[in-house]
Amino acid sequence: MSQMTGTQSIRFDREIYINSYASVVGQKEGEGPLGAQFDQVEEDPLYGCNTWEEAESRFQTEAARRAAAKAGLSMEEIRLIYAGDLLAQCSASTFGISSLERPLYGLFGACSTMGEALSMASMAVAGGYADPVLALTSSHFGSAEKEFRFPLDYGSQRPLSASWTVTGSGACVVGTKKGKVRIAGLTTGKIVDYGLKDSQNMGACMAPAACDTISRNLADFGWQPGAYDRIVTGDLGFVGQQILFDLLEQEGWDIRGQHMDCGMMIFDPASQDTHAGGSGCGCSASVLAAELLPRLAAGEWKRLLFVPTGALMSKVSFYEGQSVPGIAHGVILEHVEG
Amino acid sequence: MSQMTGTQSIRFDREIYINSYASVVGQKEGEGPLGAQFDQVEEDPLYGCNTWEEAESRFQTEAARRAAAKAGLSMEEIRLIYAGDLLAQCSASTFGISSLERPLYGLFGACSTMGEALSMASMAVAGGYADPVLALTSSHFGSAEKEFRFPLDYGSQRPLSASWTVTGSGACVVGTKKGKVRIAGLTTGKIVDYGLKDSQNMGACMAPAACDTISRNLADFGWQPGAYDRIVTGDLGFVGQQILFDLLEQEGWDIRGQHMDCGMMIFDPASQDTHAGGSGCGCSASVLAAELLPRLAAGEWKRLLFVPTGALMSKVSFYEGQSVPGIAHGVILEHVEG
Repeated sequence: MSQMTGTQSIRFDREIYINSYASVVGQKEGEGPLGAQFDQVEEDPLYGCNTWEEAESRFQTEAARRAAAKAGLSMEEIRLIYAGDLLAQCSASTFGISSLERPLYGLFGACSTMGEALSMASMAVAGGYADPVLALTSSHFGSAEKEFRFPLDYGSQRPLSASWTVTGSGACVVGTKKGKVRIAGLTTGKIVDYGLKDSQNMGACMAPAACDTISRNLADFGWQPGAYDRIVTGDLGFVGQQILFDLLEQEGWDIRGQHMDCGMMIFDPASQDTHAGGSGCGCSASVLAAELLPRLAAGEWKRLLFVPTGALMSKVSFYEGQSVPGIAHGVILEHVEG
Repeated sequence: MSQMTGTQSIRFDREIYINSYASVVGQKEGEGPLGAQFDQVEEDPLYGCNTWEEAESRFQTEAARRAAAKAGLSMEEIRLIYAGDLLAQCSASTFGISSLERPLYGLFGACSTMGEALSMASMAVAGGYADPVLALTSSHFGSAEKEFRFPLDYGSQRPLSASWTVTGSGACVVGTKKGKVRIAGLTTGKIVDYGLKDSQNMGACMAPAACDTISRNLADFGWQPGAYDRIVTGDLGFVGQQILFDLLEQEGWDIRGQHMDCGMMIFDPASQDTHAGGSGCGCSASVLAAELLPRLAAGEWKRLLFVPTGALMSKVSFYEGQSVPGIAHGVILEHVEG
């Protein structure tokens, strides 16, 4: 039986593992620093489909199939799926998962969704409710720009604080079958709203939530930042990272020695013109599968806090002058010896 | 420890209770057959706010506060919240839950969300991850029409198969503290897509998913429909109900003696001009809190299958000519003696 820990955290007493992981990304991601590590780089942004949205669904389906196959599972053996994405009414997941014909709980946590999906999946497995469980998310540059910003044909200039939505999907199979990485605990995020309204500076909107979840995680487990080899946020980018450091310093924490950000890892800002970095549900999910989990599995890192961050906004909330609150969910990942 | 049952279901071995429940609805719902049973009827559709969206958030916040208060809990004592709604990027929940300052996992299951939220909440409590947990959802006629259909000012004529989105929210506190209704088990739904594209006939789009989940529930538990005093779908309405009966008959099940539908209960079609019935996440959630749970608590019914149904669509998927797939999540609710 698991244990509630502190005020927002869970420690799993039962051993829960990540059995496999897969990533499928677009061409630009394939040209970035992690290009060789993705399972598949699809050069056609439409992935043979008619729309960005259908293409995003296909990225998700392919990541799901690859993750299941790498765990030696047929899709029928997946007991339960947790999935979500950035689009209105999570439609990339709807039309992606539909073809897999598995039981599904849909999630929305904006770019924090991979943290939420892994949290739900590990709870389901640890509780004996489902085993194995698939957790996955996706995003697509074309569908996200259409959903949140301007028609691509406008060629709108983007401020340096803006991020570039990752085209891709990451998927993990979570189960009790022993693997090389275990999910040891969780910290559930709260919505944190500093009243910021600039959707072209989402790093600043999300940094307070990342600070809240990281400091709560450290307090709940009674750890110093050094208990982690790495603390990896989702898509704060270069602007958000500095704000995170400043906010955490006010709380008495210095994570400069441990911090990485998926959004800062997936593109090369010098050559790829991606400004603050990558973003989107697919950013942290694909970097998790391509870079973080392999290094944990190899024992290069022993313990990592994965903290995807989400900016909770819609077109309507933006037009109505609402702020952009943030949320971040923490997942403790540990290398398993032997 | 809970047990996986059949291929899509869970049976809780640990006793999980619904400790309290509350509903807050709009004027039209207050004028319907269940009017006297809601905790609060708010006559101002804007609920003192500037927009439909802000009003929907406030309905959700008020339902949450009332449910916590009825369980004798301060909001700080709620360990975890599962919430969702119909709007793009679940923004009613974002701006509703934000002010409650509690850990949150956001969900999207369209109008099936109350079933999903109760499922997640009962899993979290049964697993020892959180206790007590709040499950809630909302919808609003004004925000939903704006999100999915036409500007209200057009006064568009609606076909008789169309439903009327309920303005309101329902919330439940789930915990281990003994209560009069327990959550005995779950059946997770799959996305079911019959290729229907008429968003003005969502009952027809969702009935196949309801059929799938109900027949799977009966098969997984090895029960006949008579094992339930009531099998209550979310918002199939008058058109969807007939389709559900026909589809279940093909599977060898007759639930005519047990079936009720929240969408058919909340309005009086003869006097309220609501066509096929009520719909929206707030429909099944508020009827659950106002009618189903009180009758279960009183022992009038001993066992009920609550099966909210969701139509998974967005404006974009509609414009792109996609179908409207359905999903339905089943929750087994039982009266507790003594």
